[in-house]
Parts: sequence; structure tokens; C-alpha cells
Amino acid sequence: MKGFGSDNHAGVLPEALAAIAAANDGHAPSYGHDPITERAQARFRALLGDDARAFFVFNGSGANVLSLRAVLRPWEGVIVAETAHLNTDEGGAPEAIAGVKLLPVATPDGKLTPELVRTRLVRVGDEHAVQPRVVSITQATELGTVYAPEEMRALADLAHAEGLLLHVDGARIANAAASLGTSLRAVTTDAGADVVSFGGTKAGLLLGEAVVLLGDAGGAAATAMPHLRKQTLQLASKMRFVAAQFEALLSEDELWRRATGHANAMAARLAAAVADVPGVEITQVVQANAVFAILPEGVAEALRAEWAFYDWDERRREVRWMCSWDTTPDEVDAFAAAVAEACSGAAAGASRRRTGGGG
Amino acid sequence: MKGFGSDNHAGVLPEALAAIAAANDGHAPSYGHDPITERAQARFRALLGDDARAFFVFNGSGANVLSLRAVLRPWEGVIVAETAHLNTDEGGAPEAIAGVKLLPVATPDGKLTPELVRTRLVRVGDEHAVQPRVVSITQATELGTVYAPEEMRALADLAHAEGLLLHVDGARIANAAASLGTSLRAVTTDAGADVVSFGGTKAGLLLGEAVVLLGDAGGAAATAMPHLRKQTLQLASKMRFVAAQFEALLSEDELWRRATGHANAMAARLAAAVADVPGVEITQVVQANAVFAILPEGVAEALRAEWAFYDWDERRREVRWMCSWDTTPDEVDAFAAAVAEACSGAAAGASRRRTGGGG
Amino acid sequence: MKGFGSDNHAGVLPEALAAIAAANDGHAPSYGHDPITERAQARFRALLGDDARAFFVFNGSGANVLSLRAVLRPWEGVIVAETAHLNTDEGGAPEAIAGVKLLPVATPDGKLTPELVRTRLVRVGDEHAVQPRVVSITQATELGTVYAPEEMRALADLAHAEGLLLHVDGARIANAAASLGTSLRAVTTDAGADVVSFGGTKAGLLLGEAVVLLGDAGGAAATAMPHLRKQTLQLASKMRFVAAQFEALLSEDELWRRATGHANAMAARLAAAVADVPGVEITQVVQANAVFAILPEGVAEALRAEWAFYDWDERRREVRWMCSWDTTPDEVDAFAAAVAEACSGAAAGASRRRTGGGG
Amino acid sequence: MKGFGSDNHAGVLPEALAAIAAANDGHAPSYGHDPITERAQARFRALLGDDARAFFVFNGSGANVLSLRAVLRPWEGVIVAETAHLNTDEGGAPEAIAGVKLLPVATPDGKLTPELVRTRLVRVGDEHAVQPRVVSITQATELGTVYAPEEMRALADLAHAEGLLLHVDGARIANAAASLGTSLRAVTTDAGADVVSFGGTKAGLLLGEAVVLLGDAGGAAATAMPHLRKQTLQLASKMRFVAAQFEALLSEDELWRRATGHANAMAARLAAAVADVPGVEITQVVQANAVFAILPEGVAEALRAEWAFYDWDERRREVRWMCSWDTTPDEVDAFAAAVAEACSGAAAGASRRRTGGGG
Repeated sequence: MKGFGSDNHAGVLPEALAAIAAANDGHAPSYGHDPITERAQARFRALLGDDARAFFVFNGSGANVLSLRAVLRPWEGVIVAETAHLNTDEGGAPEAIAGVKLLPVATPDGKLTPELVRTRLVRVGDEHAVQPRVVSITQATELGTVYAPEEMRALADLAHAEGLLLHVDGARIANAAASLGTSLRAVTTDAGADVVSFGGTKAGLLLGEAVVLLGDAGGAAATAMPHLRKQTLQLASKMRFVAAQFEALLSEDELWRRATGHANAMAARLAAAVADVPGVEITQVVQANAVFAILPEGVAEALRAEWAFYDWDERRREVRWMCSWDTTPDEVDAFAAAVAEACSGAAAGASRRRTGGGG
Repeated sequence: MKGFGSDNHAGVLPEALAAIAAANDGHAPSYGHDPITERAQARFRALLGDDARAFFVFNGSGANVLSLRAVLRPWEGVIVAETAHLNTDEGGAPEAIAGVKLLPVATPDGKLTPELVRTRLVRVGDEHAVQPRVVSITQATELGTVYAPEEMRALADLAHAEGLLLHVDGARIANAAASLGTSLRAVTTDAGADVVSFGGTKAGLLLGEAVVLLGDAGGAAATAMPHLRKQTLQLASKMRFVAAQFEALLSEDELWRRATGHANAMAARLAAAVADVPGVEITQVVQANAVFAILPEGVAEALRAEWAFYDWDERRREVRWMCSWDTTPDEVDAFAAAVAEACSGAAAGASRRRTGGGG
Repeated sequence: MKGFGSDNHAGVLPEALAAIAAANDGHAPSYGHDPITERAQARFRALLGDDARAFFVFNGSGANVLSLRAVLRPWEGVIVAETAHLNTDEGGAPEAIAGVKLLPVATPDGKLTPELVRTRLVRVGDEHAVQPRVVSITQATELGTVYAPEEMRALADLAHAEGLLLHVDGARIANAAASLGTSLRAVTTDAGADVVSFGGTKAGLLLGEAVVLLGDAGGAAATAMPHLRKQTLQLASKMRFVAAQFEALLSEDELWRRATGHANAMAARLAAAVADVPGVEITQVVQANAVFAILPEGVAEALRAEWAFYDWDERRREVRWMCSWDTTPDEVDAFAAAVAEACSGAAAGASRRRTGGGG
Repeated sequence: MKGFGSDNHAGVLPEALAAIAAANDGHAPSYGHDPITERAQARFRALLGDDARAFFVFNGSGANVLSLRAVLRPWEGVIVAETAHLNTDEGGAPEAIAGVKLLPVATPDGKLTPELVRTRLVRVGDEHAVQPRVVSITQATELGTVYAPEEMRALADLAHAEGLLLHVDGARIANAAASLGTSLRAVTTDAGADVVSFGGTKAGLLLGEAVVLLGDAGGAAATAMPHLRKQTLQLASKMRFVAAQFEALLSEDELWRRATGHANAMAARLAAAVADVPGVEITQVVQANAVFAILPEGVAEALRAEWAFYDWDERRREVRWMCSWDTTPDEVDAFAAAVAEACSGAAAGASRRRTGGGG
């Protein structure tokens, strides 16, 4: 059953699958010492700058935990939005695997601001308190919002002025760049990021993310990375098959932009189509590939007979609809029509209940 | 350049790649809640018994660390051969990620015995000493040797009698079963194993291993597993593509046996071909897909101009030659001829040196 | 310089020091296998119930981290007030040493309520989210407030109904019981606590805390405790000298109540003495040995020339004054007079500034 | 019951207890910001050199784990004698708390040598293998042997040449210096040590050890130490009472030398007294305060009716007799006489058994 459950319900981009098949040619050195991995790393340098050092890993949790292990000492912590995946959806890995304390900050839209970060820049030097060392943002956020490059830069500038680093959880970094109409470099290197969890899977790969060290972070951390990636259980033996997918995604004809730009466009189409449906309230600006909406009572349940999607905040009947590289306009339109119909039915039912009718 | 470097230098079995392509059909629930994952888990039950619970993970380090986390309490340790991958090649992950102390035992051939295990069953109940809780063996071992089912059973019986569990690092479990001519069940469930790191990558998958809980271990540990797999950074979002490969590998026509049996046969062919070459000393019984040999001085260096392989123990000029699912008889024969030629050249050189000749 | 900096600025109760000296008599088995430790544990049973199992440790951080290690599995978390010592003052030890994720909740007065706890009882069974397993409260709290026994019981009942445990960070548990006029049992065992970090140092010991397991928690966790205490670096070799102090503190004539009751009374005296000083605002109900107050500008600085105390929230000029077992009424009165005088001077200065006077 | 069980069965040196009492004078800043702690740190500088930075902790496990955390990155390991306390008696804390892999080496006498260390200096730079970073020795060793300063220096020189550090587990460092007749500096700073776990408890303190950073290790590690000590659960709030004991121990009249020198002398006296008893075999050179001996069958059991001591290696009937600061010559002589008598009885019994008598 297709639907709007998650961008990881979608399969593999044909180009990525073709790259895997093409890479399956005889023997190659393992653990990343192969020519395909070298070429994929070169694509990262071409797109993010000469200092970019990409280390391929298996999944987003692995990328995030490895990123933190690369730059944090044991008593240092991470300022992060309360709604960040890092804080809510890593199964406790930052704490249990990396030993890291997160310093969460409540936000209205999943986005940190310099003002919010400053509330956590306290007790510096106090041995009893975890010392802030990293500001971690998600781009695009878990709420489907996107940081403008200048918003990122303001956070990076504050972080650097205070001796901190900026980490970007970029599980949907391509969606963000596509949404902004910028290069990938504009939302990473040029925005002041030091470490990026660069997402591939949600953009359409079979499996694969990269931890990318930028600028000075490529120094000490780069020395540590091969050891830490291995120890953090993220070293693929047949790495060429992960790297090949990235080479395809970061190709000169910008597969990444086509795939995620399409997903973004489908979300925008869906939001537009339901915006005026009576009873539907869109709760977050739709800037990437997610639509968040509050639905009338009973509507989510009715829709689920045919369409997959998740609740976001059950208490206020808020749901999340995700689009992916393979979402079609027809699906969006059919789903929007179903939403309208279900809302209309709900309104009729509610009206009947209000007038004492029904039975 | 092909060669005998490692079974993970080989690519993907055509059947596994085809299974990936076939799985790339529309949307599917993520994180293993999809029909392909269910089918692959059913294959494990069909082959290893109804109690077998398979949890797919990314790589062998992940499988081993997750296996240990599933059954150990913080003060418990693992009796293991000193040469075990777990002890020598996990980059410190058992200690740093799982917090586990390994209790290594020296062995001549990489195989634990009840006698050797008993030397570590000491200080039971002493809070100052790590308490042995798991006996971990590698099947086939890092030295290319294979435990007979009754050897495994003797270890399992001792472990169980002492309140311990038997873990099998089965990165090459299929090679072991193929070597013994037994079922997979004979070297896991029926041999008394409690937890198995079941290997797929070295057998020919793109990527994928499984932690398999057997018998009673499927109880408490099974409850813990979904949480621990996620936290240990081993939960694939598009899991169907890992599971599909296992479904192919564990097919009714035993792809696993064909693939690893071939690799084993190639190793046997190579060992036979070089056994009588003057100066070559085979150092371990060849039971799986590895040949260990001591070579005359200079021979390894000469061979490396055209063939890839690794040193095992440089101090005594011992090398390791690994065969894989795609090693061909022609390659074996050509390599054996090259060995013979290089040895002959070395002997001539040595003879010249002994007689004062050369230049 | 004496003052109101902290209850750990005070020294050792004479009775505790005498107990140490008396224990220094020849040889005794180490690591707690001595008669004094047995007697001190018996005192815990006498006061908290037959099921109480006390394990002596070095300090409060050790007691808290050990308590959590004793009852949590790796993917389980702790619901805790945002202001709890556990969350703000353990230097990241819960995360780095125990691998535990804390689930903080904002509170007005440092006290959790069932309603607040329920906001964190979400996503049960979801492998992506840390699973709540412990509710941890501080009694008395970091803000000098005290849970009534029925407030604790309500939290314990909710916790138990949801399959959670109640942990009490009792660094000042004696202050709480003294404040309430109850037995120690009333704020631990009878209030439904499962695990208590039982404080000794702040009550007047040289050094020493105890992790006390109550009721069913004494089962599985009790087996684990000797191993975990050793591993958590909290096992004293000459334990008799820690135990002897607890035997004195928990004596039949209730040294604990005299010592902490006195400290509480001094705090009440101080609060009463400054309550009507113009410009002083007491910000928390004074129920234990702490007084929190907002002072006029410049007053804290003026007072510090002669008296030691800490800022609590600099942004609003809130300070914390702690009393201890050795605080004297004369000191309190002298300090209160100094506060009044400094406030009067500040008011005069402010008045001058308002009227344009001064120079 | 007195005896020869352990040097931590003894109580507190009168001078240390007096220092505690003297320190119990009014209020003092907590966590080491007090004048007594400053004076005790100054004593370390006076004795070990101006660069020595002493951080007081609770116990030996804490000192060892904190020492390793201060200097190791997550993928780095510790070369250590197989019999080292660090490897056998820390309850898995190095692994579980510090995440450190130990690289044990078998030794005949508990002492590492450059040759033994070199066997572990392999696979440098290999991400799959833990990278050796620290050589850790115990001085005096667990077997009662002592490194000569030049033996330490040879290990330090090798370590430094290879980019490693030398850690000294000095739970009995004072015994070593007393045994050698040298200064404490001769077996720490001047022997090339970088980090020392400096023991106080076994020398006669109530409780207290220090991690001492020497030379360059005082740089980066010194910055980390306050944070790591707190996080490693080793920060005493009323630290003056730990520091005061060290000030006494390290006094200008060398209490440390008198206390441990006496214990050493008692061990020598005991060894001399039993050396010629038929059936007793002294198994290690007696250089500190331990005597290791193999006894005839039944002798240990007979002696234990009146004297406390531990088995070391039951399989060969090897026992360990420890002397402490309060062992008296009379006790030694009485015990030696008891040994002789028990051996004589055992010989008679054995003789009867050989001749078919008895029964």
C-alpha cells in the first residue's frame, strides 16, 4: 500500500540501483580502499569544497552518533531542539553509545535560533555541569521547515564565537537545498557547518549516509574518524556499493536535486490541495517534503483504510504526511480528494451530532 | 586486480543482486515491518528451528556487539580465543560500545576446547573479577579451521552446565556447514548455540548479517532486541533490501551452500596445488576457504606484483590466501603456478647466496 | 570564613568523627565484610524495614549513578525534574558512565507531579524512543522544598501502575523527614520508593552515602549490586569507616534528626528574619535547609565581603543560602542583620540615583 | 582476628586520623577549593617536581580508571601485565566505565619488560585493531616484586619513543620507594612516568588516592581532569579530609616511608623465618610487603583456624601473606612458628600416609 507514511517507505532510485549493479564488477579492496569510494569522496569535495572529507556509514543514527563521537570530549554536550531526531528518535544511542548528554531547547518550529542557543551557554568551566560544545540543527527539520542559509550562518557564527561547533543532521539536507534553490555547499560549508550527517537513504538510496567533516574539523577529527567509524560499527566491508550510490546521487546532473525537489513539490501540491478543505489546519510551513495537519475527529481513521501515514501528536489530532522521490501527482490528487471527502463526511457527522440527529 | 586478499573483496552474488532489484517495487513499511523481512525470518525458522529469531543488521561487528549486548550484564565477560575476530579486529567495539571485557585464551588453531574454557571459569561470584557468562567461538575460525558439531556440542554442554551461553561468530557459518556437509542447523541449533552472528556478506551478499537467537535465548533477549538493535546503530530503515538478500541466500536450493562450498573447494584446490612446492609450508588444516602458508623469503613480495593477498604473521613469513564465491579454478591454477615459479626462483637465489654466487 | 555557601562546607559531626576513631581498632575484613558494616546495615533495616538493603558508597554522584545502573536496561530512561541534581550537576555521569538518557520535565518548584510525569509516558514499546522506566525525585529538592509523603505515594502509585520504579535522590532525605516530622521510613519505604540514594555527607558525615534497595527491588537488583558497586568505582576497601559513621547517624537517639532538624530550623529562622526586609523576596517555600531569595541590586556583592553564599539565577539576582548542622543562631542573626543593612544601603543608593543625588 | 590477609585489613595510621580531626575546624570551600587541599598538592610538587599535578580521588579503581580516561582516546588501548590489578581486579571497570581495551601480556613475575611490550606494538594505524597508547605497570607489583628505577626508565623510554605514555598503578608506590631506599620522585617523575595512580589507603590512610599528572601530561590532560574526575564519580565534596591525610603521609619526616618500610620489613622477616621450613617454597622475590609461598597439603587449612590470609593459586597451593603498617614482629614470629608447626604436622601425616599408617 503506497501512501504518505515516510520517505523511507519508498524504494531505491533507479539510478542508484544501476550504480550498484555497475559496481558489481570483479574484486575490489574492501573497507573503502577502492576506486569507487575515492570517486564518491571526490564528488563531495567538488560539491562542498576541497576540505570536505566524507566518511560513508550505514544509517542516520550511525552518522549522528559518529559525528558526535568525532568532536566531543566526554564531559561535553550538544545543544539541540527538543524535537530533533537526535533527542527523540535515536533510541538513546547518543547517551548509551556515545555517552553524550543532550541539552534540549524547546522551539515552536523545530529550529534553533541564536537567542535559544544562548540560554544554554551557561556555567562555562563548571566541572559539575556538562559543557556545551556542539550546536546541532536538523536541515530540513523534523517539522518540514528549512533554515535559510543566513539563519544557519548566524548559528555558526555564535557557535564559533563561543568555541563551539555546528553540526548539521542532514538526513534531508538535499531536500533543504532543493527547497531553497541553492547548492549543497550553501547549506553546509558556506553556512558555517563543521560536521554534517549527510543523508542518502531518505533521498532515495538503498542505504547509505556520510559523515562529512568540513574546514578545520577535518584536522584532528579526520585522524580519529577511521578508528571511530570502525568502532562505532559503521564500516562497510564492501563499501564500493554504498559509495557508488553516492556517486550517482551527487552526479553532475544533480540527481539529488531532482529526487528531493520532486518530493518537496509533491508536498507543496498536497498542502495546496488541502489548505482550503474545511476542518483541515496546516500546522507548519511546508518547505520540504512533509505536510503537518490537524484533522477533524475521525478523519485520520477513515483515511487509513486506504492510505498509510502516521500520527504526529495524537492529543490534538495532528498527522504527518511525507512525500518521497516516487510520489506521483496522481497519488497526491487522489489523496487530497480523499481528505476532502472524509472531512466533508466528518462535518456532516458532526453536524448531525450537534442537531441531535443520527442514530 | 583479482586475487586471494579476502572473501569481502568479491562482489555480490547475482542471485542476491536480483533479489534486491525484485524488492524495489513500490512502497513498503520500514524498519522490518514488511513482508520480505517476514519471509526471510521464516526462512531462518525453516532452517534453524521454530524458535529461531533472526534480527538483520548491517555488518559483522554490529552482529557481534549486538549479540553480546543482548545477553550480557555489565559485569559479565566473554571467554574467547585470543585470535578471535572479536578480540583482534573489532576496533575495540566490544569494550567501548558494549562495555564488555573479553577473557582471551591462547589456542593453537583458533579453536576453544572445554579444557581451555575451564581455565577461565574461576573466581565465580567474586565482585572484583568479571564473571564469565558467554563462550564465544568462531565457526569457521579465523584460521580457516572448522569445529565439528560434536566439538561445538561439548562446548555448549560445558557452558550450559556452568550457567553460561554459547555464542557463535558465524561470519563464515555457511562455509563451516558446507565444509562439514551438514545442514546449517547442525552447526547452530543442534550444536547447542544460543546466539549466532549469522554471516551474509562474506558468503556473497552486498551487505547484511543477522543476529539469531535460539531456544531459550529467544525469551528475555528477544524482548530486548528491537531496542538494542536500534540503539546499537544497526536498524536499517529500508530493511527489505537486506532481508531480500537473505531470502535468496537461504533459498530451498541452498545458494548458501553452493556459494561457500565453491569457495571452500577453491581453497582446497589451492592447498593441494602448492602443498608439494618446495619451500611452501601449509600451517593450518584447510577446512574452509582460507589457506595459511609460510613462504620462502622474497616469494610473497614477488607474487604481489600480480596477485593480492595479506600477510598473517610477518615475523615467520606466513601469509593468508582467501577464496570467495567467484574465485575460478583457472585463477587458482594460475596462482599456484606463480607460487611454484616464485619459490623456484627463490630457491635458486638462496642457492646462489649460499654458494657465494649472485651479485 | 563561615557562611551559607553549602551544607557541604560544614565539617564532620563530632559523633561521626568519634565513630571513625572507635572503628580504628585493629584489623577488619575489607570491602564491607566486617561487623561494623553489618551493624550499620542492620540500622537501615531497623529504620526502613526488613527488606531494606543498604550498599555504602562514596558520594552522591556515585549513589545516583549506581542506583540507575542497578535498575535500568540500556534503552530505558529516567523521568526527572529539569532542575534535579541528576540533570544539572552530575557532570554528565548518568549519560557517560551509566549510558542513561534523562527525560527532563519543567517544574515550578523542583517537584514532579503525576500530571507532569504523565506527559513523558509516551511512545511505549517504540524502539526508536527511550522507554521510561524510573521516576526520580529529589527529597528534599534542590529548591529547598519537600514532598509530603502523600505526594510521594501518588508518584509511586503512578509509577508502579505503569511498570516504572520510583527512585529518590535523598542527598537530603534526613532534612526532609526532619522537616515533615516523620520517620525516615515515611519518606522512603512507606511512600513507595524502590531505590533511594541515602545521603550522609550533607547531614554531617565526613563522607558516605548509601544506595538502599527497598521491597522487590531488593531481588534482582540486589544480586547485581555488589558487582555494579565495584565496577562503578564505589567500593571502599576500609568500608568500616564509612559504615561506622552511618551507624552513628542512624543511632536510636536520632542524630540524623537533630543534625538536619537544626539546619532546617536555622533556614527557617533566616527566612523569617529577612522576610520583611524591604527589597528581599523569598522565592521558594522554606521547608528544608535552604533559603532562596531575590535581592536588590548590589546587595549580594556587598554581603560577600564577609559572608559566603552562591548565586542561583544571576539574571534575576536570586541567591541561595544554605544552613548546616553547625550553623548557629548568632550567625543567622548577624547575617540577617547584614542583609537588612545592605538592603537599606541599596535602597538609599537607589533613592539617590532616582533623585539624581549621589556622586 | 589479625593476620596477613591484606594491607587494607589494617586501620588508619594515627597521624592520618589526627590530621582528619585537625581538619575538622569550621567551614571550608568544598570540592578541593580549600587551603588544606592546596597544601597537600604542594607536598606532591615538593616531592615529585614542580609539574606534578595531584587530583585526589576515593579509591584505587577510581584512580586507575580516571588515569586512563585522562589520556586515552576511545580506540586506544593499554599494554599491561596479565596479572595486573587493572586486568584482574577492577570488576570490568576499565572496559565498562572507561571503554578501554586492555592488551595483556603474560609475565613470570608481574613485571613488564621492553621485550614484552614490543610484542604488543603491532598493527599501528590499522583501524581494525585497538592502538596501543599506554604502558601500565604496577609498582610494587601484585606479586610483591619491585621495578628498579632503571627498569622503569627503560619502559618509559620505549613508550615515549613509540608515542606511548607510561602509567604507574602505584597503589603501593610508597612500598616500592621504601623497598628501593629511594625518593618517591625516583620511582615516578625521574623514572619517566607520565601518570601515576598514587596510593594512600594501603599505606595506612582511611581512604584516599591521587591521580598525579607529570610533565607534559599535565597539559591537555590537566584541563580535562576536573571534568573527568567529577564525571568518574571521584570528586569528594569535603575534600579537605582526604587531602589532610595526604599532607600527613607526605610530611617532611616521611610518614609514608616509615609506614610502608615497616610493612616491607615485616614481610622480609616473615620470609626469612619460613624460608627454611621444610615444605615451604617462597615463589616470588620478597621486595615489598607480600610473601608468596607454596605450602604442603593441609597446612593452609590448619593455619586458618587462627590466622587470616588468602589463597593465590589454589591449584598449586600457593598462598599470599600481606604485611601492613601495624603488623608487629611478635605477630610475624608467632605466625612463622605456626607455619613451621603446621608443616611439621603435615610432614608427619604425609609420612604416615606413605607408610600405610594412620587411618
